[in-house]
Amino acid sequence: MSNFYIAKSRRLRGTKYTSRVEKQGVTHYTVYNHMLLPAAFGPLDELYHHLKEHVQVWDAAVQRQLEISGKDSAKLVQLMTCRDLSKSKVGRCYYCPIIDDNAGLINDPVVLKLSDTRWWISLSDSDVGLFAKGLAIGRNFDVKISEPDVDIFSVQGPKSFKLMEKVLGPKITQLKFFGFDYFEFGGAKHLIARSGWSKQGGYEVYMEHTEAGLALYDKLFEVGDEFNLKPGCPNLIERIESSLLSYGNDMDLGDNPYECGFDNYINLDNDIEFLGKEALKRIRSEGVKKKLMGVKLDIDNISVTGSMNLYDSKNELIGELRSGSYNPMFKQAIGIAMIKKPYFKQSQEFKVNINGKNVSGKVCDLPFI
Amino acid sequence: MSNFYIAKSRRLRGTKYTSRVEKQGVTHYTVYNHMLLPAAFGPLDELYHHLKEHVQVWDAAVQRQLEISGKDSAKLVQLMTCRDLSKSKVGRCYYCPIIDDNAGLINDPVVLKLSDTRWWISLSDSDVGLFAKGLAIGRNFDVKISEPDVDIFSVQGPKSFKLMEKVLGPKITQLKFFGFDYFEFGGAKHLIARSGWSKQGGYEVYMEHTEAGLALYDKLFEVGDEFNLKPGCPNLIERIESSLLSYGNDMDLGDNPYECGFDNYINLDNDIEFLGKEALKRIRSEGVKKKLMGVKLDIDNISVTGSMNLYDSKNELIGELRSGSYNPMFKQAIGIAMIKKPYFKQSQEFKVNINGKNVSGKVCDLPFI
Repeated sequence: MSNFYIAKSRRLRGTKYTSRVEKQGVTHYTVYNHMLLPAAFGPLDELYHHLKEHVQVWDAAVQRQLEISGKDSAKLVQLMTCRDLSKSKVGRCYYCPIIDDNAGLINDPVVLKLSDTRWWISLSDSDVGLFAKGLAIGRNFDVKISEPDVDIFSVQGPKSFKLMEKVLGPKITQLKFFGFDYFEFGGAKHLIARSGWSKQGGYEVYMEHTEAGLALYDKLFEVGDEFNLKPGCPNLIERIESSLLSYGNDMDLGDNPYECGFDNYINLDNDIEFLGKEALKRIRSEGVKKKLMGVKLDIDNISVTGSMNLYDSKNELIGELRSGSYNPMFKQAIGIAMIKKPYFKQSQEFKVNINGKNVSGKVCDLPFI
Repeated sequence: MSNFYIAKSRRLRGTKYTSRVEKQGVTHYTVYNHMLLPAAFGPLDELYHHLKEHVQVWDAAVQRQLEISGKDSAKLVQLMTCRDLSKSKVGRCYYCPIIDDNAGLINDPVVLKLSDTRWWISLSDSDVGLFAKGLAIGRNFDVKISEPDVDIFSVQGPKSFKLMEKVLGPKITQLKFFGFDYFEFGGAKHLIARSGWSKQGGYEVYMEHTEAGLALYDKLFEVGDEFNLKPGCPNLIERIESSLLSYGNDMDLGDNPYECGFDNYINLDNDIEFLGKEALKRIRSEGVKKKLMGVKLDIDNISVTGSMNLYDSKNELIGELRSGSYNPMFKQAIGIAMIKKPYFKQSQEFKVNINGKNVSGKVCDLPFI
């Protein structure tokens, strides 16, 4: 982790939970959608082990909701993603790559269908609202585009289910993965999805009603001791181990959904209109020239703050490392890398310069586990 | 300044100068256009005084260039701004509010006309490229939209002129304010504008040629001693004193250009098509309901990390403070606030709660000096 401080200002918006997480011991922030995202509460490995055994509450308000409503809302949402939403259901979440006309990745949000004419796009880190506005204006769509006052908090870890059941009743345990429903607490109904940015299970509370929502946040900490609840945040070690991709880190506008392994979210054989469809058809027929893969490194400590070039034994560039961390389970550093085509094979060896030293490593398939 | 660290990652892109500024003593970063922007090299007041007397070099690469080229490029650039660019000249910079169809402010960049069919939009902190892409796709414009590999460094302070003359020759001193031209150094031509985000004078080097550009950066430090050159960054104290507005801090999508005092950059009485024109005409005829003004506070230390409500003696909300800092010249804290309509008068008194204490202050006109 770095030794540089963050200079706060109104432009890096706080969330409804900022004063709480600062009392709870946040040490590091990152910035995401022009907002403060807790990135550490002390050493990452402590909360990594904790997350895999117990339960944590995270300030995840940076996942801003882009609300698109109105007569043409479904058309606009579909125009932006290569995933077929024609059979999408109210009450379900959909992971949807958002791409431009060249199939470059703009964002990888979860889309919530609130009704046939009202959608939330739960964004990763880019101003998709401006893209939607541009398209809507250009196409004369009848839509309303806004960023509603929704600050998500996330409850993650294997004991999430027991904790949430204790506070909200047994109905919450019946939510299916990527389903959402409304649950009452403190005199308000809260949209809660079974989702979250870890592979340890849990929920995301889309907090719209501040007073009742903060009461729910506080209630979880009041009763959480028996589940060993701690404040936490997306954990770099866990998310890499679980192969959860991070927009801006692992992929960006220079990459297309096939290169990121999103094949399951690309639907080309239909009559649906979306941007980048022709580009994706071309890529499908030609095959990708690079793709995201795992790497394992013979080093026990790494900090990836930018792309790091990977070279084979002949000093040919085989790709670039984009994320990485030491992993206690593998007992070595692992990471996510964009690998060039001739080097896709498992166990491709490489060298990477880390702090002036050549470190060796091997390519592997994703997911790691 | 805050005591929280920044968690670095590839998503918060470093610049071509990051390794240099870290050797040169940067202590605080902010994040701007998904990139690291130095925010302090130790105490702000030291570099404030230095900036007003001497010369500094800043890593200003976060001002990303949105390049729009092609047959319809002028049409697209004009569509996004309320400033009339029909008589704009190659070799000039134009401060241009970018607004949406409701006249909400999306960005306040400087637009550089490189040729009739090639423009750079030097962005403040929002993904205007996505807005431009959406509009271009929606309108079927024949344009190419890209973010070229341009990392600006800024030379600011009264001794900028002598320093730059020493390295680049006397021609650089003939550049007029907001003019730009190409200057040779290290075997490459560099676009240099007389501009920058301080009121102390200086230049911005739009560095496209990395090797020659970094050589120029280093050369300035090599010869800079006689001008008392220091590494620096946009200085909160100086920029507030000089009433330089900051997008995201002082204004955002919820504000229109009239409310921000951009009257000189709004041209409504012409046949030019741009977004938000009807909304601006309505606002012009109705008058603004709030506007940015200065405030002076009876306190010698302030840290504004979010909107702070201002109340009059009857506890009526009169507006919100959006930026602020102690100012050595005024010997009190000053700031920029969005003030509601009935309270526009000079010397309007208010109270604001700072760390649990009521602090009194007065509204004043901008600019402060």
